[in-house]
Amino acid sequence: MKGFTLWFTGLSGSGKTTLAREVEEALLERGMKVEVLDGDVVRTNLSKGLGFSKEDRDENIKRIGFVSHLLSRNGVVAIASAISPYEEIRRRNRDMIERYVEVYVRCSLDELKRRDVKGLYAKALAGEIKGFTGVDDPYEEPKNPEILVDSEKETEEESFQKIIRTLELMGYIPGADNSDEVSPEEEEKIKQRLHDLGYI
Amino acid sequence: MKGFTLWFTGLSGSGKTTLAREVEEALLERGMKVEVLDGDVVRTNLSKGLGFSKEDRDENIKRIGFVSHLLSRNGVVAIASAISPYEEIRRRNRDMIERYVEVYVRCSLDELKRRDVKGLYAKALAGEIKGFTGVDDPYEEPKNPEILVDSEKETEEESFQKIIRTLELMGYIPGADNSDEVSPEEEEKIKQRLHDLGYI
Repeated sequence: MKGFTLWFTGLSGSGKTTLAREVEEALLERGMKVEVLDGDVVRTNLSKGLGFSKEDRDENIKRIGFVSHLLSRNGVVAIASAISPYEEIRRRNRDMIERYVEVYVRCSLDELKRRDVKGLYAKALAGEIKGFTGVDDPYEEPKNPEILVDSEKETEEESFQKIIRTLELMGYIPGADNSDEVSPEEEEKIKQRLHDLGYI
Repeated sequence: MKGFTLWFTGLSGSGKTTLAREVEEALLERGMKVEVLDGDVVRTNLSKGLGFSKEDRDENIKRIGFVSHLLSRNGVVAIASAISPYEEIRRRNRDMIERYVEVYVRCSLDELKRRDVKGLYAKALAGEIKGFTGVDDPYEEPKNPEILVDSEKETEEESFQKIIRTLELMGYIPGADNSDEVSPEEEEKIKQRLHDLGYI
């Protein structure tokens, strides 16, 4: 199979990395080469010293894009998980990477404040963290992501299946026996989206 | 074939990138997947903002090492070309990267000052550039590089053939019909080196 980049974008705590790791496992089981570039990996190995200014955030997203690009064009599936709040830089990566698949993990701010697993939203709302995406820094919603999952309304399993089924329908990953785990209604929606985006 | 990392180290102007690009071309012709990470690529895409302090240099070399590591373990030949003056960080990369082949491109400082293609040595000697490797910043010579080429005593073609022949003998690249382009004496030296390093 050819490589591609699966780019998870969404607010902090929306569930990007959890889904990224599940997809990684599934793709490894199907014999694909996969590398996950999530926040921890990137901060340690590519972006030490970068802060949270718009410029630094953009630089961070560009670097992840560059490495995804190198991997993708050499037959590897690069799975990136990063808030990536700005449309302009996401578009730049999309233009650079030949096979770029965007997954927008949507979740309302109210729900994220309620979950607040790491206590970051509380701190941001109290002004203890500045420039926090969704609180005092913007998140520009993707307008046409290849895959839209909603971690507020869907179960993790539903979101996961939607991602896998979309990649199968795009011909980016080999099929498996469990492709009936997506409901007929969902299947129709996925096909409609891929049709609208010009893939099928 | 499996991936590996070919790491060119040596002083500024020694000829690392020229050789790296020639090897890239030869490996592409043999059907391998290759990515070159040289100074320009890296400064633009991975290390914007880093300076020339020891800490920043180390960070730069670590990043190139990390990307080489990702590529290598996924079947790609990563060719890095960087002064990489410090033994400790080269060793760190060697430890991280499973199949790491170091090419030390040796050239005397006198010869480099004489060539001085970019005029950098003149500026460094005049104190206009600070922390220039070989002038007022150390270059720690590799003690046991897999491949030692000498751009002062050898022609570019001789250095190139030595690199290719070594990679063939290591079994890292497929053979070609021109392996008699290395002299019998040189062939013996290459084999002795690989034997001493435990490869053959």
